[in-house]
Amino acid sequence: MSNRVFNFYAGPATLPLPVMKEAQEEFLNFQENGISIVEMSHRHKDFENLVLESESLVKELLEFGDSHRVLFLQGGASLQFAMLPLNFLTSGETADYILTGSFAEKAWKEARLIGNVHLTASTKEENYRRIPDQKELTFSPNPAYVHITTNNTIYGTQWSYTPQTNHPLVADMSSDILSHPFDVSRFGLIYAGAQKNLGPAGVTLVIIRQDFLEKVPTSLPSMLRYDIHATNNSLYNTPSSFSIYMLNKVLHWLKKQGGLAQVEKRNIRKAAYIYDVVDKHTDFYQGHSEKNSRSLMNITFRLPTETIEKLFLTEAAQHKMIGLKGHRSVGGIRASIYNAMPEEGCQELAAFMQDFCKRHG
Amino acid sequence: MSNRVFNFYAGPATLPLPVMKEAQEEFLNFQENGISIVEMSHRHKDFENLVLESESLVKELLEFGDSHRVLFLQGGASLQFAMLPLNFLTSGETADYILTGSFAEKAWKEARLIGNVHLTASTKEENYRRIPDQKELTFSPNPAYVHITTNNTIYGTQWSYTPQTNHPLVADMSSDILSHPFDVSRFGLIYAGAQKNLGPAGVTLVIIRQDFLEKVPTSLPSMLRYDIHATNNSLYNTPSSFSIYMLNKVLHWLKKQGGLAQVEKRNIRKAAYIYDVVDKHTDFYQGHSEKNSRSLMNITFRLPTETIEKLFLTEAAQHKMIGLKGHRSVGGIRASIYNAMPEEGCQELAAFMQDFCKRHG
Repeated sequence: MSNRVFNFYAGPATLPLPVMKEAQEEFLNFQENGISIVEMSHRHKDFENLVLESESLVKELLEFGDSHRVLFLQGGASLQFAMLPLNFLTSGETADYILTGSFAEKAWKEARLIGNVHLTASTKEENYRRIPDQKELTFSPNPAYVHITTNNTIYGTQWSYTPQTNHPLVADMSSDILSHPFDVSRFGLIYAGAQKNLGPAGVTLVIIRQDFLEKVPTSLPSMLRYDIHATNNSLYNTPSSFSIYMLNKVLHWLKKQGGLAQVEKRNIRKAAYIYDVVDKHTDFYQGHSEKNSRSLMNITFRLPTETIEKLFLTEAAQHKMIGLKGHRSVGGIRASIYNAMPEEGCQELAAFMQDFCKRHG
Repeated sequence: MSNRVFNFYAGPATLPLPVMKEAQEEFLNFQENGISIVEMSHRHKDFENLVLESESLVKELLEFGDSHRVLFLQGGASLQFAMLPLNFLTSGETADYILTGSFAEKAWKEARLIGNVHLTASTKEENYRRIPDQKELTFSPNPAYVHITTNNTIYGTQWSYTPQTNHPLVADMSSDILSHPFDVSRFGLIYAGAQKNLGPAGVTLVIIRQDFLEKVPTSLPSMLRYDIHATNNSLYNTPSSFSIYMLNKVLHWLKKQGGLAQVEKRNIRKAAYIYDVVDKHTDFYQGHSEKNSRSLMNITFRLPTETIEKLFLTEAAQHKMIGLKGHRSVGGIRASIYNAMPEEGCQELAAFMQDFCKRHG
């Protein structure tokens, strides 16, 4: 695949090459049915099985059982920003939000349209360079839930701990789901748009505790009710079937990698190649996030001038590395290195950074 | 493609083979970018252009201009059932619904959760065998909108006329959009899940009149606001990008067919092959829908006994024709022959029906 490049986009993002090749191979004929997966009825037994198997694979990878359901919905994390309070922030209650980046802010803004919201902590004043400590979190007396964003794509920060609270914890894990093992039992609800670590855009993974499903108001439109999606095994209406199919293949691929403990080890190694160069040349590369808040998924840094940053992007593209432009809120460079980014891609970027610094530093 | 079969599923449904082959060919490398379309940022210029071009192609095929916007949303027609009244059925107003099938009923039920709804007409008592006449439509005094379902997949009926009303007409066209030319100016809002005539599941086409966009309440969650999607050219959040990409290819394919007038001619011919056999053997094949309400997209009929129906399905599968089982509400056989079903598929089905009747009639 000599014409393929290393793709550092923040999402939709690079996918595992074996998964892509398999999908290409069987694109006109899925499981000897004589039709494509995209042409198959969502009521076909083979597709229903694929959805059920995907739920099982998520449970296997994250090691949980019947305490939670796994749903595959549409609308991305953005629709979850609204569905969550519509389902679980009833009149008279308060929900706690911790602001650690732009998407956390969006979640908070949508919740404010729907109910009472308490700001538990925010690092906005520091341009979201860090995740707050546990001792900075001032919860409201009895929140319906506490919302966090575990990884902040734009700023390159990631929670290194799960906050302690006696109230249901809800997490937007769009940009680090399945990148490391974690204890699902600590969460009431988890949601994640697929397009970073799970597959193509179009499907949202939701992991929801059984008792949450019982609290859903029946006055809500059907498509916005978690319980209806759960009862129908994510097939209440026609889902984004190709996205679920690809997600299923990615789950199999993660299993083949040896599970999430192995995936995490590899992610730590991958990020280290790049952070090491940043740390060796602090006069040239300036990391955006504080060291103890650093993300293993998105690495953000600035160079001495915007002109040099532009040159960096141009030269990187010549070396077949694309999607490295930082978000405008931070500027500079952002390398997104989700699960599917090969170790080789991170090594090549690190080597390029080393060389670029030598030539322009 | 000797292993491909004729796929008569009601949706997700067969797609044009040239479109499928093109997508397969470039699956690992979209437009020489060195990455797949499913791995490309939705902020990439090439993807933004693809979305804008898709809007233009819809306008070109349906011959309308700046009076309406074209949006590509998530959640299927089912989410539209709720979004429509949330946006346009404000307190104190009434919306009119015409029930011609299960999906029309679902739309009506969701609207009832949200506001006042008037039943303008229903053919439910006749198991939805027909579309009501204009003179049967008893509108409420001043409806916010009048909702119809132009084609009824399960029952095999289709509106042959656009109802006269002085109030905004809204249509669910999920199962016959772009299968024939029609006058967009007659409609305030049109929506259609893609998975029948437009492409894979995961994207919903919305055509919305500019003045509708100005009526959207700002209190709604962002993802449920048509105006926010319009302002952001359908890129408010990460869309189901592969579905839009495939839809774009289908639009190009429709243009190559000579436009919608040609597509309609072909659809009339295709349906005639099958209806002709039904009409020649009324003692063996019993059409579900009344003749003047017949759908060109979904052809529904019963055979003398359920045993013979099962045999029909088994033998059809042996002849490489699948997805012909009728929905449980009607039973029997349903042949879905959307735009992408080749003429040859309809001819083969008709020949098989002729032969089957001779052997078992």
